[in-house]
Amino acid sequence: MRYSVTHRDGNTQARTGILETEHGEIETPIFMPVGTRASVKTLTNQQLIDCNAQIILGNTYHLMLRPGMGIIEKAGGLHRFMNWDRALLTDSGGFQVFSLSGLNKITDKGVHFQSHIDGSKHFLGPIESMQIQKTLGADIVMAFDECSPYPSTRENVEAALERTHRWAGICRDFELQKHQSLFGIIQGGTYKDLREQSAKALTGIGFDGYAIGGVSVGEPAEKMYEAIEATVPFMPQDKPRYLMGVGTPRNLVEAVMRGIDMFDCVMPTRNARNGTAFTWAGKIPIKAARYAEDFSPVDPLLPDCYTSQFSKAYLRHLINVDEITGLTLLSLQNIAFYLDFMAKLRQAIREEKLLEFYQHICTIYPI
Amino acid sequence: MRYSVTHRDGNTQARTGILETEHGEIETPIFMPVGTRASVKTLTNQQLIDCNAQIILGNTYHLMLRPGMGIIEKAGGLHRFMNWDRALLTDSGGFQVFSLSGLNKITDKGVHFQSHIDGSKHFLGPIESMQIQKTLGADIVMAFDECSPYPSTRENVEAALERTHRWAGICRDFELQKHQSLFGIIQGGTYKDLREQSAKALTGIGFDGYAIGGVSVGEPAEKMYEAIEATVPFMPQDKPRYLMGVGTPRNLVEAVMRGIDMFDCVMPTRNARNGTAFTWAGKIPIKAARYAEDFSPVDPLLPDCYTSQFSKAYLRHLINVDEITGLTLLSLQNIAFYLDFMAKLRQAIREEKLLEFYQHICTIYPI
Repeated sequence: MRYSVTHRDGNTQARTGILETEHGEIETPIFMPVGTRASVKTLTNQQLIDCNAQIILGNTYHLMLRPGMGIIEKAGGLHRFMNWDRALLTDSGGFQVFSLSGLNKITDKGVHFQSHIDGSKHFLGPIESMQIQKTLGADIVMAFDECSPYPSTRENVEAALERTHRWAGICRDFELQKHQSLFGIIQGGTYKDLREQSAKALTGIGFDGYAIGGVSVGEPAEKMYEAIEATVPFMPQDKPRYLMGVGTPRNLVEAVMRGIDMFDCVMPTRNARNGTAFTWAGKIPIKAARYAEDFSPVDPLLPDCYTSQFSKAYLRHLINVDEITGLTLLSLQNIAFYLDFMAKLRQAIREEKLLEFYQHICTIYPI
Repeated sequence: MRYSVTHRDGNTQARTGILETEHGEIETPIFMPVGTRASVKTLTNQQLIDCNAQIILGNTYHLMLRPGMGIIEKAGGLHRFMNWDRALLTDSGGFQVFSLSGLNKITDKGVHFQSHIDGSKHFLGPIESMQIQKTLGADIVMAFDECSPYPSTRENVEAALERTHRWAGICRDFELQKHQSLFGIIQGGTYKDLREQSAKALTGIGFDGYAIGGVSVGEPAEKMYEAIEATVPFMPQDKPRYLMGVGTPRNLVEAVMRGIDMFDCVMPTRNARNGTAFTWAGKIPIKAARYAEDFSPVDPLLPDCYTSQFSKAYLRHLINVDEITGLTLLSLQNIAFYLDFMAKLRQAIREEKLLEFYQHICTIYPI
């Protein structure tokens, strides 16, 4: 994988870049739709391609449980299993082991946990995570980390950090497939000096890219922005920076202005299934009575999106009667919006109009 | 609407034809996917067009309850509401009023019933059904009928038949939109002489097409075939014949050989949501363990269907973990199969190879 910065904003830390993978080029800053279980919920690969998705995520924790690595290995990896020939990123499983699984017990080697599906017992540590991600074969692989909840005592964050750094070294020593890159995950919670310490420790080990983890776990947005500001100065300029699990359109532009290049979040697809459309006019709660007879398209400023062929009244009807097609059309809208949003954000950086773009976003997405 | 027979099979009652509507030509025999609530479940209009769907159904009963006729009228009709510019057929609401709604009371003027959604009270008779279907604006409108359950006493079927015929006359006198055609529905249950009587009564009134109703209500397939055989000889040669709510691929070819031109059924979409794929190798229960590591496409004989890009193992995984995309891909497969099945059936009729086609279908779809 090669990463090159193509433009730096004069007023902020924002930058545009190109990430070259064996499965295509990715323009940064980029948003990566989440395909937890080898599928971006409600959408087909073709619909993702129609939205110009350049890279999507898969989740190690979910995929190791179902369908299981035996099947994915026989399929020839995740790309072939799900027939997706653009870039893929897999997470390490660490976050889900702590947040989703039943009783878990942390040792120095990793985490013993029970499946949230059937209670079966599993173990995931840095070696196991690398083995699984090697089998999955994603272009970008994440080091196995321990994500501290919010709030956490300094003592707990320090203990997690120690493990995260040791595990990062183990992951770095693991031989992945030739086309795979490895990103380290910087932790440290809301403690600025621990963020600096973690960034330095991981940079010392040396990765192809660096993620900021342990954000978007319930803390206020301001705390997250502070964590980014405390971390970015200690991240290499010549490597991509990935903020995990974020966020709202406002969050994205705030983070880009602080130097972030990559994002993933379930928000566009999850909120679609709750009846929320993300549009260039802001969030639209499509179930609201005021849209019952609104025959205008859900987002006139996204005319190329297939969903724009349908009225708010029609989408509202589909969602209200629980038609799956309604979930699909809203998910398509939201992914198309997020990706168009990132494209416009990149354009604003290139054209030195980022502050104007930022001010506009603050009016349509105040939080 | 104009209907013309283009080819008659030499050995059976089968025929091909063209149905010309204001929203495109329909080649018969045709299968019409069911879009109950202004959406064919899990699919987008584009996916239906990709399957070569020429006409789809909407359901009067469901649409009058939600979103309600006020909204559809303001949208400019069902075509515009759902942005479908190919042909549409709407049913009369009669079948659902009897099968789905709560307490209902039949009078000579129609049926008082309670919504299955919220218990609200409604009335639907021939006038109301025509008014609603005029507002919906489908190309083909169905007369309001009373569908007898199976089994029913002769006395009950005769009483329902008397009302159905009287209501048919009222529907015929109702002025629809200029582009709309009206089909009468022949009832009579499993009583052959009543089928004859009903066909003659409706032909006497005169419709643009004729449906056989009251089948696929739990009777054995043989009883259904007998009902068709008792009815078709008394249906006009120069009008399309529609068998309502049928059925399996075997049912379709059996009915076509007995002179039927049009079908609708929820089977391909409903069974998709239960994990059943209809393919040119027969029905495939995709959840079965034997497909866990089967990386061949679900239907190699349907290569143009988008679902053919994915393996059985992948589809099985998606269905097993309840991913909506799995429901979409299987629904797409099943609709594509049903429409390809009808295309091959038409071709077999044109090429005088219907008996070979029939024998092949009997092996892959024995029931």
